[in-house]
Amino acid sequence: MQWYLVATLLTVLTSSQGILTTLSQSNGGYKYDYATVPFLAEVFKLAVSSVFLWKEFHKLSPPKMTTEWKTVALYPIPSIIYLIHNNVQFATLTYVDTSTYQIMGNLKIVTTGILFRLFLGRKLSNLQWMAIVLLAVGTTTSQVKGCGEASCDSFFSAPILGYMLGALSACLSALAGIYTEYLMKKNNDNLCWQNIQLYTFGAIFNMARLLLDDFRGGFEKGPWWQRIFNGYTITTWMVVLNLGSTGLLVSWLMKYADNIVKVYSTSMAMLVTMIVSICLFNFKPTLQLFLGIIICMMSLHMYFAPPNMLVDMPVTGRSDEEKLKEASVEPRARP
Amino acid sequence: MQWYLVATLLTVLTSSQGILTTLSQSNGGYKYDYATVPFLAEVFKLAVSSVFLWKEFHKLSPPKMTTEWKTVALYPIPSIIYLIHNNVQFATLTYVDTSTYQIMGNLKIVTTGILFRLFLGRKLSNLQWMAIVLLAVGTTTSQVKGCGEASCDSFFSAPILGYMLGALSACLSALAGIYTEYLMKKNNDNLCWQNIQLYTFGAIFNMARLLLDDFRGGFEKGPWWQRIFNGYTITTWMVVLNLGSTGLLVSWLMKYADNIVKVYSTSMAMLVTMIVSICLFNFKPTLQLFLGIIICMMSLHMYFAPPNMLVDMPVTGRSDEEKLKEASVEPRARP
Repeated sequence: MQWYLVATLLTVLTSSQGILTTLSQSNGGYKYDYATVPFLAEVFKLAVSSVFLWKEFHKLSPPKMTTEWKTVALYPIPSIIYLIHNNVQFATLTYVDTSTYQIMGNLKIVTTGILFRLFLGRKLSNLQWMAIVLLAVGTTTSQVKGCGEASCDSFFSAPILGYMLGALSACLSALAGIYTEYLMKKNNDNLCWQNIQLYTFGAIFNMARLLLDDFRGGFEKGPWWQRIFNGYTITTWMVVLNLGSTGLLVSWLMKYADNIVKVYSTSMAMLVTMIVSICLFNFKPTLQLFLGIIICMMSLHMYFAPPNMLVDMPVTGRSDEEKLKEASVEPRARP
Repeated sequence: MQWYLVATLLTVLTSSQGILTTLSQSNGGYKYDYATVPFLAEVFKLAVSSVFLWKEFHKLSPPKMTTEWKTVALYPIPSIIYLIHNNVQFATLTYVDTSTYQIMGNLKIVTTGILFRLFLGRKLSNLQWMAIVLLAVGTTTSQVKGCGEASCDSFFSAPILGYMLGALSACLSALAGIYTEYLMKKNNDNLCWQNIQLYTFGAIFNMARLLLDDFRGGFEKGPWWQRIFNGYTITTWMVVLNLGSTGLLVSWLMKYADNIVKVYSTSMAMLVTMIVSICLFNFKPTLQLFLGIIICMMSLHMYFAPPNMLVDMPVTGRSDEEKLKEASVEPRARP
């Protein structure tokens, strides 16, 4: 399978996620417990991965699986990072309003690029760095509050601690992605087996979260497993299946493509969601959305297009080093 | 003189222009007749160019001057294009509001690129085209109306004829620039001599405009030459000198650099004006200005940086043509 097909599918499913979640609300609120959705999605991913792994055993060569504890012990780490991230996110939101938080979320694109370079040692060209910054600028542009919108606080009016926590949140979110990529590419283990480890811990952490919510609420509404499907409609199930499927696609991309591809997919999905919302929910089209789309498209082209498609490659365009190498090698090659 | 020094000076002077013009107002209005400013600026440019040309005659080799009517007759054309442009601008503003007109003005950046390619035959790389579009997107982003601003009409709400006239206006404005570049580079004539021809016609057309205003007003306030300096302060004179100086710099750029350099200079000047206004007139800094600045900086780098600074030039990055050439030549080169 080609990575760009998977990336496109991820864009489609991620953008549906926002729309399905909105459609699953009734009167602007959730009739079901939203915390059950990620838990069930983890269970769905676990089930799908198990079925696929079981199928692998019927093939001639058995799937490669590392089962030693030293390796398995690395798999809860993404869940732990997400747990810390959620708490930082909560703390951030006590200092900044949600729209400022949303805008700062775009910083994740840049931090992913930085950690991609630092931890995975991947080199990017100057143009690709510019493309990454432009992607963040483009998604931010599309979110600029238009005139006539309700809340009108300046983006620059929050306390400095709020911005620092927002930046930390962006780093943690990027770190989880980068660490997952490292984990998936670390060895040649079968993807399904890696997924099973990842999602088992994911399911456990989500379950713990549900239990914690119950404790916090003093079990007033009863334990979570008794009311897990309360208020579920067909749309809620679609939200679960959709979230699970996007998770599986992200896993695939982490192993066979990389974090930057994932970041482009989900950023494009955000723009698609905004466009679909204009048609579906009668939102007003804004100039800033239009500008944001152009910027992100340019960024996409800058990052992924082959260099010789972007710049004219003149003979003098070759680096001086190369020319030197040629000059020093050629005389020796000739008799 | 290096073109980028001239371009930087143009940016500084153009941004001062907006600020000086604001400072020359009293109680939000002009106490002097604003139409006299461009006329006096033309006279100033004419005077400066004449002095410099006169100095040239004292040098060993006399300045090259084509005086045949066929060539001189080309010099009123920029003034004529500007005349048509002003009328189209006036018509556009009956259909769209000033802020929509201002936003559409950024289209001039793209039309300049297109005419630059079409009429002057200059080739741009894909990346340079993207840079030009990004420059227009960046300046537009910085002008997006924030929430809480007075007028709140949607950008997309004007009649279609308004947008068409706005596009025509952008084309005419670009055409005047492109034609001037063609004129200045057409032959090796001395720049001062070319300026004298350009500004003589400029002064005549501006004078005609003042006279027309008088006719329209029924000479109620007397002819223009009797009240030309009415209400002039030291700031007004600075506006005149500034406008004249920017004109001279633009002329220089048209001859020794090109329209794209000029477009970058003036676009950057717009951003500088906005930044200075925040400090000087206590304007609120907006997120969109911040984003616009990043986009324009990226665009500047994309357009002017040498390709090997932007993309890694791998050995495989050389065009297939080159590789073929090498493959077919090398065997023969070896004995």
